[in-house]
Amino acid sequence: MAAVAEQSAETLPTFADIEAAAERLAGRAVETPLLENPELNERVGGRILIKAECLQRTGSFKFRGAFNKVSQITPEARARGVLAYSSGNHAQGVAAACALLDIPATIVMPADAPQAKLDNTRAYGAEVVTYDRYREEREEVAAALLDTSGATLVKPYDDPDIIAGQGTCGRELARQAAARGASLDTVLICCGGGGLTAGSALALEALSPSTAVYTVEPADFDDTARSLSSGRREGNAPEARSICDALLAKAPGQLTFAINRRLLAGGLSVTDDEVRFAMAFAFRRLKLVVEPGGAVCLAAVLAGKLAIRDRTTALTISGGNVDRARMANALEAHPDAR
Amino acid sequence: MAAVAEQSAETLPTFADIEAAAERLAGRAVETPLLENPELNERVGGRILIKAECLQRTGSFKFRGAFNKVSQITPEARARGVLAYSSGNHAQGVAAACALLDIPATIVMPADAPQAKLDNTRAYGAEVVTYDRYREEREEVAAALLDTSGATLVKPYDDPDIIAGQGTCGRELARQAAARGASLDTVLICCGGGGLTAGSALALEALSPSTAVYTVEPADFDDTARSLSSGRREGNAPEARSICDALLAKAPGQLTFAINRRLLAGGLSVTDDEVRFAMAFAFRRLKLVVEPGGAVCLAAVLAGKLAIRDRTTALTISGGNVDRARMANALEAHPDAR
Repeated sequence: MAAVAEQSAETLPTFADIEAAAERLAGRAVETPLLENPELNERVGGRILIKAECLQRTGSFKFRGAFNKVSQITPEARARGVLAYSSGNHAQGVAAACALLDIPATIVMPADAPQAKLDNTRAYGAEVVTYDRYREEREEVAAALLDTSGATLVKPYDDPDIIAGQGTCGRELARQAAARGASLDTVLICCGGGGLTAGSALALEALSPSTAVYTVEPADFDDTARSLSSGRREGNAPEARSICDALLAKAPGQLTFAINRRLLAGGLSVTDDEVRFAMAFAFRRLKLVVEPGGAVCLAAVLAGKLAIRDRTTALTISGGNVDRARMANALEAHPDAR
Repeated sequence: MAAVAEQSAETLPTFADIEAAAERLAGRAVETPLLENPELNERVGGRILIKAECLQRTGSFKFRGAFNKVSQITPEARARGVLAYSSGNHAQGVAAACALLDIPATIVMPADAPQAKLDNTRAYGAEVVTYDRYREEREEVAAALLDTSGATLVKPYDDPDIIAGQGTCGRELARQAAARGASLDTVLICCGGGGLTAGSALALEALSPSTAVYTVEPADFDDTARSLSSGRREGNAPEARSICDALLAKAPGQLTFAINRRLLAGGLSVTDDEVRFAMAFAFRRLKLVVEPGGAVCLAAVLAGKLAIRDRTTALTISGGNVDRARMANALEAHPDAR
């Protein structure tokens, strides 16, 4: 697969931007718990700390970046509204942030997004415009809408304010781990375009510099893993498919990869069936509702993709917006996952 | 329904017993998080703090009392094993505690207990003996087994050590609320035999004495609510049925009611359909897997059974051990619960 052409670099966010984002988010975002399950620890022979972002407002970490971005839009621009494109979690994050700030929102979403994500986005008051994920470019659909509305575009990951907002998740994780005396050997982060990863890696660089940070991606959407190996942005094959609807980015972001190539230890990947196992394990053992894309790090741990014995490993569970049928399918496929 | 005859009172536990239990449980039980969901708060117009005991070891609060009790059994008695009767969560709690302490465990469980509870109890290494919930008395089945084994009986609620162990849940709740500056107007506690309620009420009396504590029970198993009204222990009708398999106690415990009648503000009840709504809401909005009996307090809040507007209300989600079909049924029954 061809490498993606590099463009001129925008200013990259810093840890100070993450601190500023945390102030904006105080009282708006949930400080999600860092969970620990003794039976999971016993199963894997190491200490696993779970940053449960499925418990975030809107059911995923995406609210963090969205609110950080949207809350900085000027009053004049707010009147023209906000536009975003998203597979569903950024959609809800932007819609919820706009609802809190009384800004009109239009969201471009794939027609085959999970019904829960479409319903929730509309429930926050946003106008949803659907497109065909495999036949249309969402950026082009968005550009046409922007031309007529003059709305502010809120990109899903390749924006310094989005990266800084998502970084508050890693900042919380590092501080919560330190508060319980845990020294983090490894942190695994669910990765699509790389915004959560880049922001969290920046926070960990500042707060826990000896920690090795890895991405986890779906097997055929391991563009960040391959890009980290080759040193340049690699794309995914157009025919690739995965149940991890939240992680189907075509290639790493320009800004996110500029950060991630400097800070990451590497990238892991998991199959859809390993993801289903993790979803079933989370339901039965952790009592958490986790969507496919949110379960990839747990899947990597349960499938033994990384040495974790006698180590302390933190991982993100990044979202819980899953349709009933998808969850039923995972539970049926893995009756013994517990 | 006839009042249950009073027997001679055993020594009731005190807050000091709860503190001692907390020391025994340190490093064994999970300090479960006190969760807050801004969208739930906005929905009900008050502040709701959720003590998520579904995230406890074994998936319910029952591990607390079981470990507190079992860890105090003398070495000589440990060799003869432990026996318990339980609808399923106490079963898992006792089995897990015995596994940690290397004590043989036999558990008498209803044949119609959820499959997840039967499977998990066996997976902890316990021997499971089933009985017919509606045709046999579990106490009699247990007594026959005790005669031959000489095992130590670990009752599900009417035991000072069990009550003290469950009270560590209320102690944590009170301390966690105080740590975030929340003054608790009301606490709602899921109630079967009343052990979690009695222990938590003792903890709240010590740590948050102005808080009003209420039980929540299934509609036709509201024995504690009626007993609080009449001032004496009332039983439930033999023909009563509910999906809340964890809360089908026949009447309040003797010890638990002696505590609860002194400390509680009253008792609420919810229908099975209100419970299903709460389970579906928890799945879709809170991203928590909650079993029917664990969802009664959330159901009471969502169904408007208590004045919560502009107040701070804490509630227990006491268990998450639910079969897939039961969860699917709740999600199907309430597609709009979110």
